[in-house]
Amino acid sequence: MTNSNKKAVVLLSGGLDSSTVLAVAKQQSYQTYALSFRYGQRHSIELDAARRVADCMGVEKHVIADIDLRLFGGSALTDEIDVPKYKSAEQPGTEIPITYVPARNTVFLSYALAWAEVLGAVDIFIGVSAVDFSGYPDCRPEFIAAYEKMANLATRVGVEGDRQIKIHTPLIDLSKAQTIELGIELGVDYGKTISCYDPVQDASCGKCDACRLRLRGFEAAGIADPIKYLV
Amino acid sequence: MTNSNKKAVVLLSGGLDSSTVLAVAKQQSYQTYALSFRYGQRHSIELDAARRVADCMGVEKHVIADIDLRLFGGSALTDEIDVPKYKSAEQPGTEIPITYVPARNTVFLSYALAWAEVLGAVDIFIGVSAVDFSGYPDCRPEFIAAYEKMANLATRVGVEGDRQIKIHTPLIDLSKAQTIELGIELGVDYGKTISCYDPVQDASCGKCDACRLRLRGFEAAGIADPIKYLV
Repeated sequence: MTNSNKKAVVLLSGGLDSSTVLAVAKQQSYQTYALSFRYGQRHSIELDAARRVADCMGVEKHVIADIDLRLFGGSALTDEIDVPKYKSAEQPGTEIPITYVPARNTVFLSYALAWAEVLGAVDIFIGVSAVDFSGYPDCRPEFIAAYEKMANLATRVGVEGDRQIKIHTPLIDLSKAQTIELGIELGVDYGKTISCYDPVQDASCGKCDACRLRLRGFEAAGIADPIKYLV
Repeated sequence: MTNSNKKAVVLLSGGLDSSTVLAVAKQQSYQTYALSFRYGQRHSIELDAARRVADCMGVEKHVIADIDLRLFGGSALTDEIDVPKYKSAEQPGTEIPITYVPARNTVFLSYALAWAEVLGAVDIFIGVSAVDFSGYPDCRPEFIAAYEKMANLATRVGVEGDRQIKIHTPLIDLSKAQTIELGIELGVDYGKTISCYDPVQDASCGKCDACRLRLRGFEAAGIADPIKYLV
């Protein structure tokens, strides 16, 4: 319980990974400050999920920041074009998927860093995994290490030097199945989460990369996915 | 003219430093993409100046991104409190000024990185100076070096590895006077810029840190500052 008076900023998308990470931070007794982004997604279902998860897990505060990466274009997740099916799930790790949002984790972590600095916190949690890395460069451990080093030079903490910013990545070495097993152990209600890139109302498509990774994770863990799918 | 088909993202506040940096990027024959932020400033005069400077210097495109760091609070520049007069100008470098915006350059550079990635650019320009460092941790060369390293791990460039992201800091070793001399040489119209934290209409206060640094710079350079002051 050494962390019980320590604050942590947790990046929370409302998906499976970030919800598990929030549970890990809670289990480590941090006071949690959940941060989500409205970044030009074509649906708000993801943010509804983030709100549900934040509520039921008892965060101190949940902030949704508006950032408009559509200004710059460049990704299916924010552009007004169709999300491809089957692409990198067929060939994991072979190329950067076109659903890549430019510099996304860099931008997200930078907001988290700003909030942490205001809170006087040095702990930031993010649900990246190097195992299900899927070709996103900003999910790799070497990126996280470099970010952490930069963050310590960017902030008052870096100047004053009594504490160090730590980017916590509790899922970095876990497969999707292992993440799910960890979450179940910590009591995460995955029925409140959503992962789909292209949901219809409250139903996930079951076909996009995110759905396929999620479904294979539940299958490998031998657990039923409690959310609703179109197919 | 080796850079004439190369694109660069230039962070442009509409102030003296960033306007000089834009002139440097132009002089190095980059196609320039100017990026400004509406980040909860209490005045839009700064953005008006950024627009004037971008227009008259012939940038390819000028984007103003809305980011709301007020969500997190923590700085006189974005909070609804008075800007202190005289503070760190009396004792430069002795403490972090309360006008510090948390993780500001980290957030700004992250947006620049996102745009650069979409443009296929690897060159980002920012007007930080280690000489007039004023206690801001994210103006130091070690921060810039760490940011650059992180950026190369965060992006397609970092994965594909044929080019490297470069954070250009042409003012890093220049005093304010030297920056002004450089800008005059490059034809910068400083009458279009503004530096004041607390302007009244088009007149600068002449008293805040930013005004004092600017005025001392012009004085040391032996050049008259063309903008209007209240005092």
